[in-house]
Amino acid sequence: MRAIVIGNAGSLELREVPTPEPGPGQARVRVRACGVNRADLLQRRGLYPAPPDAPSDVPGLEIAGEVDAVGSGTTDVRVGDRVYGVVSGGAYAEAVVVHARTLAPIPSVSGAPLGFVEAAAVPEAFLTAYDAMVAQAGLAAGEVVLVHAAGSGVGTAAAQIARAIGARAIGTARSKEKLERAAALGLEAGIVVEASADGSGVTFADRARELSEGRGPDVVLDLVGGAYVPESLAALADRGRLVLVGLMAGARANVDLGLVLRRRLRIFGTVLRSRPLEEKILAARLLARNLGPLVAGGQLAPVVERVLPLDAAAEAHDLMASNASFGKIVLKVD
Amino acid sequence: MRAIVIGNAGSLELREVPTPEPGPGQARVRVRACGVNRADLLQRRGLYPAPPDAPSDVPGLEIAGEVDAVGSGTTDVRVGDRVYGVVSGGAYAEAVVVHARTLAPIPSVSGAPLGFVEAAAVPEAFLTAYDAMVAQAGLAAGEVVLVHAAGSGVGTAAAQIARAIGARAIGTARSKEKLERAAALGLEAGIVVEASADGSGVTFADRARELSEGRGPDVVLDLVGGAYVPESLAALADRGRLVLVGLMAGARANVDLGLVLRRRLRIFGTVLRSRPLEEKILAARLLARNLGPLVAGGQLAPVVERVLPLDAAAEAHDLMASNASFGKIVLKVD
Repeated sequence: MRAIVIGNAGSLELREVPTPEPGPGQARVRVRACGVNRADLLQRRGLYPAPPDAPSDVPGLEIAGEVDAVGSGTTDVRVGDRVYGVVSGGAYAEAVVVHARTLAPIPSVSGAPLGFVEAAAVPEAFLTAYDAMVAQAGLAAGEVVLVHAAGSGVGTAAAQIARAIGARAIGTARSKEKLERAAALGLEAGIVVEASADGSGVTFADRARELSEGRGPDVVLDLVGGAYVPESLAALADRGRLVLVGLMAGARANVDLGLVLRRRLRIFGTVLRSRPLEEKILAARLLARNLGPLVAGGQLAPVVERVLPLDAAAEAHDLMASNASFGKIVLKVD
Repeated sequence: MRAIVIGNAGSLELREVPTPEPGPGQARVRVRACGVNRADLLQRRGLYPAPPDAPSDVPGLEIAGEVDAVGSGTTDVRVGDRVYGVVSGGAYAEAVVVHARTLAPIPSVSGAPLGFVEAAAVPEAFLTAYDAMVAQAGLAAGEVVLVHAAGSGVGTAAAQIARAIGARAIGTARSKEKLERAAALGLEAGIVVEASADGSGVTFADRARELSEGRGPDVVLDLVGGAYVPESLAALADRGRLVLVGLMAGARANVDLGLVLRRRLRIFGTVLRSRPLEEKILAARLLARNLGPLVAGGQLAPVVERVLPLDAAAEAHDLMASNASFGKIVLKVD
């Protein structure tokens, strides 16, 4: 089969590689589309190595396609099923082998099955946002969530999920245009992030508190990290929760523990990829049971900015690195 | 009535003050003993102002005594009941008025009611440890908790609670003697904290991981803060939880967010005093329902280092500030 392989110096090369065979309990999926994630760019630079159950040199964390072979004892899916899900790696390829219970059926919208390209834009963004914001941080109806990088794949998913569960989303981005586009997805108000007065950080906490009745957001969903963390903590309401799902702005933060104590704040770190199999299966169940019906009902819809063929993976990465895109970039695998 | 009042420049003076009268739903407790807490020292220095429902100038956060008057509509306690609990302030006095539902009955041990001095050593230490470690951080049977300041009131309570619920406690202290005394209360192993090689922090993470099968503790109960925080995060197991209940070593920490993300760590800040009434009532229910039976059954016993009369409050504070004490210091109110 053909796959995108990380070559020397981080190049992306379309190569012929052996087609994997499914073992007991596993299924092979003929990949029809795969989503591009920021983690793929990190893996290419050697900063995010694949876990042992994934190929070390083929990036890609989410797929949509059809089951084309199953291993012995695999009863959860059948050949021909249209499935999607998060994988540990290897999605930039014509086929991947995964445990069958980590797959979820692609839902139908108004009677027609969601297309593979749209389906491939769902798993990482919506699972990350739902798991972090709802399952972990316990975002509830009536609460306010502040979503950083509101124009990203996860950000656009988060605003829709917040609206779907009766919570209110406000968000930050670096450009006014992204915030305007996010408003159409359910973002109630946006804040263009600017450098703080002394230039050492960023400023958005005061505005975020204004936009949440002076109380501060109950939850912050943070893909950015770095200087965003102390500012997010300053914004949060009493008993507020900061869920950290990315570190685009850096991995160090000077934290005011007095604030954390006094306001009884909580900080959660989370990442999908390194989870053990049983938790990946739970994530797939969440995709099937909680998110699937919301996609089918039209409350959630993936935002696909750009579709490129598999052999244009490098171009897709350049586009993502430019931070100019809104929503997801998807590779189509013919 | 007589009370210890914070005078000019933080002096502690025994003065005659008006006896408070209970309003609707409230009860007045004739205080027989009150525990001394580090927060009392902070309040005296103007660093921990009393909430609006407490006298601003009388310290003291926990009491044991007898109900001697009730307000209209108060049905939860009766005059003569032996009660104890956490109060918002004002405990260094002959009487306090509180909402009746924030009081819990003093349990009996082997048929005899726990003495007032011992009872006054229970609420803050055991509620703080139980609420932080079990209710919030979800410490479960089979897990390992690392308790900082293992010789403190909260520390000695935490080791006993861990043992009572089937978890394993390891702990840190500044002296070997405190760790040896803590071992008798259920602390499985102790680490004498030392300055890190570069002198900028402290070191205990490697040893804590060794003492927990190389995996790291599942929960850290931290009364110390400051440089203990990054070191505690380095020690924690995957999905570990750090609960911050005090800041004896400072309110700033440089946090490695990459570690928080990768290991999916959680950091919780918590404090009892600033909670609203409904949560203080929940804490009292926890004292009555969860901790009371364990005290009655002998699994939990307060550790009283020193008993002083109310008018020796300043001496009690000096003793606490010296960090030489093990367990609780209690003021007896005759």
